[in-house]
Amino acid sequence: MADSSRTRVLTSQQDDFPRWYQDVLEKAELAENGPVRGTMVIRPYAYGLWERMQAEVDGRIKATGAENVYLPLFIPQSYLEREAEHVEGFSPELAVVTHAGGKELSEPVVVRPTSETLFGELMSKWIQSHRDLPMLLNQWANVVRWEMRPRLFLRTSEFLWQEGHTAHATREDANAYALRIHLDVYRDFLQNVLAIPVLVGVKSRRERFAGAINTMTCEAMMGDGKALQMATSHELGQNFANAFDITFADSSGQVETCWTTSWGSSTRMVGGLIMAHGDDRGIRVPPRVAPVQVVVVAVKGDERTMTTASSLVRELVEVGVRARLDNRTTQGFGRRATEWELKGVPVRLEVGPRDLESGQATIVRRDTGDKTVVALDTISSTIVKLLESMHTEMIEAGRQRLADRTVGAESVAEALDAAKTGFARIPWDQLGEEGEDTLNREAVSVRCLQTREGTVPGSGDLDAELMAIVGRSY
Amino acid sequence: MADSSRTRVLTSQQDDFPRWYQDVLEKAELAENGPVRGTMVIRPYAYGLWERMQAEVDGRIKATGAENVYLPLFIPQSYLEREAEHVEGFSPELAVVTHAGGKELSEPVVVRPTSETLFGELMSKWIQSHRDLPMLLNQWANVVRWEMRPRLFLRTSEFLWQEGHTAHATREDANAYALRIHLDVYRDFLQNVLAIPVLVGVKSRRERFAGAINTMTCEAMMGDGKALQMATSHELGQNFANAFDITFADSSGQVETCWTTSWGSSTRMVGGLIMAHGDDRGIRVPPRVAPVQVVVVAVKGDERTMTTASSLVRELVEVGVRARLDNRTTQGFGRRATEWELKGVPVRLEVGPRDLESGQATIVRRDTGDKTVVALDTISSTIVKLLESMHTEMIEAGRQRLADRTVGAESVAEALDAAKTGFARIPWDQLGEEGEDTLNREAVSVRCLQTREGTVPGSGDLDAELMAIVGRSY
Repeated sequence: MADSSRTRVLTSQQDDFPRWYQDVLEKAELAENGPVRGTMVIRPYAYGLWERMQAEVDGRIKATGAENVYLPLFIPQSYLEREAEHVEGFSPELAVVTHAGGKELSEPVVVRPTSETLFGELMSKWIQSHRDLPMLLNQWANVVRWEMRPRLFLRTSEFLWQEGHTAHATREDANAYALRIHLDVYRDFLQNVLAIPVLVGVKSRRERFAGAINTMTCEAMMGDGKALQMATSHELGQNFANAFDITFADSSGQVETCWTTSWGSSTRMVGGLIMAHGDDRGIRVPPRVAPVQVVVVAVKGDERTMTTASSLVRELVEVGVRARLDNRTTQGFGRRATEWELKGVPVRLEVGPRDLESGQATIVRRDTGDKTVVALDTISSTIVKLLESMHTEMIEAGRQRLADRTVGAESVAEALDAAKTGFARIPWDQLGEEGEDTLNREAVSVRCLQTREGTVPGSGDLDAELMAIVGRSY
Repeated sequence: MADSSRTRVLTSQQDDFPRWYQDVLEKAELAENGPVRGTMVIRPYAYGLWERMQAEVDGRIKATGAENVYLPLFIPQSYLEREAEHVEGFSPELAVVTHAGGKELSEPVVVRPTSETLFGELMSKWIQSHRDLPMLLNQWANVVRWEMRPRLFLRTSEFLWQEGHTAHATREDANAYALRIHLDVYRDFLQNVLAIPVLVGVKSRRERFAGAINTMTCEAMMGDGKALQMATSHELGQNFANAFDITFADSSGQVETCWTTSWGSSTRMVGGLIMAHGDDRGIRVPPRVAPVQVVVVAVKGDERTMTTASSLVRELVEVGVRARLDNRTTQGFGRRATEWELKGVPVRLEVGPRDLESGQATIVRRDTGDKTVVALDTISSTIVKLLESMHTEMIEAGRQRLADRTVGAESVAEALDAAKTGFARIPWDQLGEEGEDTLNREAVSVRCLQTREGTVPGSGDLDAELMAIVGRSY
């Protein structure tokens, strides 16, 4: 396979990153537009990625004690009026069902933009006593927010997500739980499974979720230096509980108002994975999340090659590697290699008659492109070690890019300049809300506020000595 | 805990089975109505059941080689007109979005009643060559069919399901695959996980899915003797492929039309589990699907009891049992026992100071109510064996009920009489389509047609010597 054939497949990232993104979605058979504007078809390979992401996030959510529920797709329009602040935010984004059952509905129903209002109604009913607290609920579902400028995975009119909603007896408990979700679920998943380094911090007042007293965020840097918000966790104080009358009797029988949190992550993370790790040859799937970690490619169709390839797949599966056989030897080898590169399978194991003569096969790393010829009897142990080190090297490369493309800035002008190619790190007391205004006019925003050590500041405390991370974003 | 307190909780099945069903959904905290008529809130315990059901079905689907995709919720109204036969079927069931993005849409969009038309469009595009076949796709999603007479889990305006759609080069391959899904996925799951015996067979022409040349079904008998259709698999011949232009070039380059199948199962199966296994004390969850297989109940709050209960949970988890601790000793023991009975946890392990004096604890089986006092050091091995035999006994009890309440009938009158309490089994050549008319007028239907040996007849062959299974149904 000549390099020239590779370069023809995708627009290069350098030339046009958004075009590269569109190209790779199509050529790697990840996703395409649905017939209704803004909707998305998630094809098998990308859905397989999402399934593994979902399982990893879900396991971590359950480990915090939360349970999953399923609430209806349809919400009475009147429900959304209970939270005036949110209606303002969502109204143009709502899809409204006016006809059903063959006739016009007496009250139109809204397709959920979130299930927040339903969670509010139900928690109000389900929570009576301090014994019912904390109530820790989560939902995996599709939601709809009409998009005028859709972009696959990043901004679609319908997307898949999880939304958690919890109620607590005290502010401290709510804060501690939201922080746990943020660090032990989201950050841990993003870094230790997706191999994407993230900056954790809180949002500025302007970027905060409507109704929240504090919004925590995980921000990642994409291949083009822009930021992608990967997941957020909100402390809602007693605002939400007051709106929905979520109260409990404490141990003395006194009625108190709950403190609530909400937190979410979505199919947007698939877009993040593509843009954080992709290169000019396609996507690069980090090994821990890869549905296929190793593809064993039979180079030719002779019996010895085919038998060896099959037995290597079995051997890999036995040691816990997700391996798959490519025995489509009637198709050209180069074309198949290009396909697996596009799809970013971490390791390609090429098995062909020439290598087999000397009892060997060739391991090709997708991340670096390195090829190593290895003796057949050491292949599975070599690959197990390789997959682990690939994870470490991929997140390390991400950390390096983040460091290289983050500039310490002392003024708004410097921050704006840095945001052309990456992030700026500027003291929040230098920037302030007026500086934030100036940035926003140039389509640059405060991605998060951190302590000087890079940790999450205390709940809602924006007066401490914080650093602002500033950049363009998706 | 006195029996009198138990009988107060639920209406008895004998007195009013539908009322019992409503009661148990509420008291066992399984599900409730959503605010929009016909919609459903699935509460954590029932959603946990669905998650395990979904995982078991999904694993079996993947084992046949199918892959999951996600297609959009919204479908252009014009798409549904391509398959006139289905529009007729669905039209009054459709929920239609007319407004989005703050204004009226130029073309209304329909909330998917199935994704069939989208699968058709996409397969037409994705399938080019015989190398693309078979194409085996599945989707887990919510769908909406407006219900005038909703019943939780059984008939709701929105429900969760999987729908599989596959395309094949030949009729034989399509038939073999649909049969494999039917027996190795659905029947195997229903019997070997849900412990519900099912009758497999094909639908009569009248009961067949619109557009299918053959519909296979799994029919189960509920506690009241009525039938519930648990899952269906359809061979669509070339009808669907013709409507959507799903063609392929064979190895000689000749363009041929595909043969397609579709198959589905839904949250209706949760209703089936409840009605097939429930009794006057609540639901009874078969051990293989139970999210909690054993609840270890600390009877009192003394230290020895609490420590022993916790260590028994750990010990059970270590041998692979899904065990959970109930240490809410500030609440009455009787109330807690009733709760676990309502929720149908297969085994209750009661740990209290009195038993501990003699190094023992009490195992209570939910299915039979039997109590056994067991030495602490044999508990985990006893429970592992017990869970296996409970599965066998539960499906055996279902088989017995099915046998007891299925009557061999020689005439339409006899069949109608049998359908008052269960099923009738009548030769199809005795019944025929006129007999089917007569049954239908009395709200009795042909549930399936089987060979005399109880197996699935050959594709679309309704002229052989078949037996009709006849009954009332949900």
